[in-house]
Amino acid sequence: MTYCLAISVDDGLVFASDSRTNAGVDYVATYSKMSRFVFDDNRVLTLLTSGSLATSQAVVNGIKRDLDDPEAKFDISQGKYLHEVAEYIGRLSQHEQRTHGKAFENSNGSNESSFILGGQIKGQPCEIYLIYPQGNFISASAETPYLQIGESKYGKPILDRIISADISLSDAARCAVISLDSTMRSNVSVGTPIELSLHRRDVFQSPEHLVLSANSEDYLSIQAQWNNGIKSAFNQLPKLDWDKYNR
Amino acid sequence: MTYCLAISVDDGLVFASDSRTNAGVDYVATYSKMSRFVFDDNRVLTLLTSGSLATSQAVVNGIKRDLDDPEAKFDISQGKYLHEVAEYIGRLSQHEQRTHGKAFENSNGSNESSFILGGQIKGQPCEIYLIYPQGNFISASAETPYLQIGESKYGKPILDRIISADISLSDAARCAVISLDSTMRSNVSVGTPIELSLHRRDVFQSPEHLVLSANSEDYLSIQAQWNNGIKSAFNQLPKLDWDKYNR
Repeated sequence: MTYCLAISVDDGLVFASDSRTNAGVDYVATYSKMSRFVFDDNRVLTLLTSGSLATSQAVVNGIKRDLDDPEAKFDISQGKYLHEVAEYIGRLSQHEQRTHGKAFENSNGSNESSFILGGQIKGQPCEIYLIYPQGNFISASAETPYLQIGESKYGKPILDRIISADISLSDAARCAVISLDSTMRSNVSVGTPIELSLHRRDVFQSPEHLVLSANSEDYLSIQAQWNNGIKSAFNQLPKLDWDKYNR
Repeated sequence: MTYCLAISVDDGLVFASDSRTNAGVDYVATYSKMSRFVFDDNRVLTLLTSGSLATSQAVVNGIKRDLDDPEAKFDISQGKYLHEVAEYIGRLSQHEQRTHGKAFENSNGSNESSFILGGQIKGQPCEIYLIYPQGNFISASAETPYLQIGESKYGKPILDRIISADISLSDAARCAVISLDSTMRSNVSVGTPIELSLHRRDVFQSPEHLVLSANSEDYLSIQAQWNNGIKSAFNQLPKLDWDKYNR
């Protein structure tokens, strides 16, 4: 499995992804699920992938192929709006899935993939989109300023408590780390390294990027302090008065 | 949906359940998912239910019918071991599912139910069992001292951080409340009131029982303090040094 998320706040965007891939329990590997595309002074895009690794890689390869091909009908450097790029990625994904669709009809596997596309095109706001395996997509909103793909449930409660549009980019990034850490503790199919990317609003250069391995000092220190913080918050909770309720 | 859990610690058992039932979004209702059976000075049992409400209710009705019927082959007051009671409940559940099985083959719905059975039979240890829709079951272990049914993922990270066999029953109960609260914040299909039951080891009388409604003072106070505790733990986290990583 996978767990990736993107958070949209007033100051820009944060992207975060785990790096574990597994095809059965005996083939577990580490792959980056984050691709970054920078077109200086024009647009900065990040793509997160979840689901079939073959489909995800084929989509990223398709993006690069079309960028190289002067005769391609569309590529991600084109389009005035980010939703045009989202639509194009949905098409690439559907095309790849159809190519092997017949073979998958007779197998238990699935070649579906989901994507989060986010970034900013000059003159447009920062945006994030979740692209479904069927190729259609949704954007985040002011009320729901984050999107998740993959094993999303374990890491959702902390987002619901902390994330709002007015928190800083650096707080959003730390919250993404906690959301991933909670997921990794509870589900072995999600694993380090954690990759983070940070788009500052209206900056059209390479986004800040950070990789936290399992034993990086920064990650260990966040992990330990969060664990202690949770335990001390827990210990300070009011006790339930069982005597009051007993009947 | 539903979220129920049972926690086994050295001092006894804690059971917790939400109370929301829905058949589609336009039929949402409140039902207790916790049944308690006390046989003074012999055994104390609690049953939690998840899945089809019809199957769950039929199983509870079957338990009561067999208790009333002197000719029943087995009832929950019998059996030297708790796993015999678990097996019996699995049989009731399978029987009920088979009765309507043909009808469900042609519908999109499911009449499957899962159960958590826990308690103590005199002379035996406190135990908890998860009974699958297929009627088979597993028990908790020293390494995994809790069991969950229903929407279990949102509330798992806090259990993984806090629960171990040596915490007090009252701490286990507060942790169950937090696990349910986190789930309810992130998933509307799980809702108040929260029902809690507390079996003290070797006490064969009615277990302590507590119902927390959405606006009960105790619940609101735990909720508010937990939310503040999480936020303050978050604010104390070390900052990521982006400059160190930028490249």
